[in-house]
Amino acid sequence: MKKTILIAGLGLIGSSLALCIRKQHPDYHILGYEPNQASASIAMERQMVDELSDNLAELAGQADVILLCVPIQVSLDLIEALSHMKLKEAVLITDAGSTKSAIVDAAEKFLLPKQINFLGGHPMAGSHKSGAAAADLHLFENAYFIMTPCQATKVDAVPRLTDLLSGTGARFVQIDAVEHDKVTSQISHFPHVLASSLMNQAGDYASVHPFTNNFAAGGFRDMTRIAESEPGMWTSILMTNPEAILDRIEEFQKRLSQVSTVLKSGDKEAIWEFFEKGRQTRKAMEIHKRAGVDSFYDLFLSVPDEEDTILKVLEVLRGISIVNIRINEENREDIHGILQITFKTKENLEEASQRLRIQTNYQINHD
Amino acid sequence: MKKTILIAGLGLIGSSLALCIRKQHPDYHILGYEPNQASASIAMERQMVDELSDNLAELAGQADVILLCVPIQVSLDLIEALSHMKLKEAVLITDAGSTKSAIVDAAEKFLLPKQINFLGGHPMAGSHKSGAAAADLHLFENAYFIMTPCQATKVDAVPRLTDLLSGTGARFVQIDAVEHDKVTSQISHFPHVLASSLMNQAGDYASVHPFTNNFAAGGFRDMTRIAESEPGMWTSILMTNPEAILDRIEEFQKRLSQVSTVLKSGDKEAIWEFFEKGRQTRKAMEIHKRAGVDSFYDLFLSVPDEEDTILKVLEVLRGISIVNIRINEENREDIHGILQITFKTKENLEEASQRLRIQTNYQINHD
Repeated sequence: MKKTILIAGLGLIGSSLALCIRKQHPDYHILGYEPNQASASIAMERQMVDELSDNLAELAGQADVILLCVPIQVSLDLIEALSHMKLKEAVLITDAGSTKSAIVDAAEKFLLPKQINFLGGHPMAGSHKSGAAAADLHLFENAYFIMTPCQATKVDAVPRLTDLLSGTGARFVQIDAVEHDKVTSQISHFPHVLASSLMNQAGDYASVHPFTNNFAAGGFRDMTRIAESEPGMWTSILMTNPEAILDRIEEFQKRLSQVSTVLKSGDKEAIWEFFEKGRQTRKAMEIHKRAGVDSFYDLFLSVPDEEDTILKVLEVLRGISIVNIRINEENREDIHGILQITFKTKENLEEASQRLRIQTNYQINHD
Repeated sequence: MKKTILIAGLGLIGSSLALCIRKQHPDYHILGYEPNQASASIAMERQMVDELSDNLAELAGQADVILLCVPIQVSLDLIEALSHMKLKEAVLITDAGSTKSAIVDAAEKFLLPKQINFLGGHPMAGSHKSGAAAADLHLFENAYFIMTPCQATKVDAVPRLTDLLSGTGARFVQIDAVEHDKVTSQISHFPHVLASSLMNQAGDYASVHPFTNNFAAGGFRDMTRIAESEPGMWTSILMTNPEAILDRIEEFQKRLSQVSTVLKSGDKEAIWEFFEKGRQTRKAMEIHKRAGVDSFYDLFLSVPDEEDTILKVLEVLRGISIVNIRINEENREDIHGILQITFKTKENLEEASQRLRIQTNYQINHD
């Protein structure tokens, strides 16, 4: 059945979701609400949306589903605004914010009394680029799409949203909003605080110890990468999830104090245990797995710094499915200076290893 | 002139240096001292060394240069032991440890009184693999090779060592040992403490909040990668550089407290400034540059999850020199879900961008 979908906010997430909805449901009518003129123009030109308007109330009244793809603070305002508008009785409202408790609180405060169906959403995807110009049909492939049912969520909401967004290729999971915010504080929000703090610390240190800028190598580079994220979004995240993040900061400070204590006492065994625990914990984490089931299989190849080396390697591996590939050669440290190729199956790894052994003279290692 | 070189310790670093010396100075006679039978056998079989012996004193007496490529604590013992041995008058002793103050202290204590020439060394390279089996001629290419002259260092030491190791392709720099240990505490040692602490924290959190294991994405993955490093080496590093590391820990705790304070007070502008400072600092850092001069140029390509996609892209880019390539598709977050290709020059980037625009329909972004 033909539906009318309103996407409020045609930035990266909103416009990418528009592409995914269009692909799976070409007959749906997609309305766009986007005050930013640049993104609005691109969305119309590329036919991501069928209609654009500055009149949210008029658009909202036609919609069967409303997706709020705007900054969290704006979503909070729109949830209140929508509660005062004349909407279709069966309308489903959802959002795409990175924190969920504040959103769910607003929905229960403003939408629940009017029996408006709301389901919080968080697609765990993004890009270093923003705006409709960066819209990407593949953005959500294999990513978690978290849904946080609350008291304002009716029983049809999860299947309706899952069907609407099936073109994303995402993995849909349901979780309580408060639990979502705790978990993401640990694996995303607090790590951003850590990365920016480390970057700021190193920056200040470099003004007194200039070689700091030169010697920063692969490990430091990886640890501070997310410090380059857009500050506005992360400010919003911290502002809407302070308790969970404060809890992680304070707990982390205690851990650092423990390290200081064993370091001051020269307790070699305790230091070793500290590093060993981190190593074993990471090895056991899903971080090495795909979809929570399969392991990844890594092959490490020592290659010279020559043109087309990677191309030659991939020609040897033609037809073998590669999950990931990476080379690092600046300031080699740790696992750097090596072409790392990741495979989904052990069979792929072994096939690749055998071909490379026969057809190249590069040094091969795998776990 | 033909020289005799003793490499004490034929692990990854020692055996890789052996390959580099052999390449540049094929006429040199290389002696090996390696108690580990596996590495010793491999070193002989692959002709990395010409002679092996368990008798350090006998080997040391023949050597023009002695390279200590053993764990830091062992180097400290060997420096004392060597001071009691009969050595050639012009012998030069060096090491490859990741911390330098303790090493230099030992050299000044034991070698300086006997006027034995010593120059501390730290090749900033490594691999996730260890032992002579992982020996790699390319390990040190473009890596910093730090030399820390001290009171026991004679005027000929730097040119002699630079010539001996010219086959590494490393970038040689000189720095004071104490300064070395401060700088590396900031960009390497303390980040390892951070990574392991974060990993341990997340591991403990996962036992109460199981989704922690599932939602950990690219940012978390990058931030904890070095937590999988070999704990023995990092324990030695912490044990021989406690002051600098303790200073970084304590200073970092204050930074976290400042974040807590602004977060508790809901100071949005201060949070934004915190993230923005980190972002700008990282953008300005050499981390994005090569050899401290050239910038890198990144191209981001949105590619589908299909076989041979990267091969197809590299075929289009044939002949263009690629510095780095990386794809990430698990739990896409931040800049993930995108094939990132790094070029050394703006011209390479533009040529690549133009070819890809004409020959593929992938979404292209570059800075």
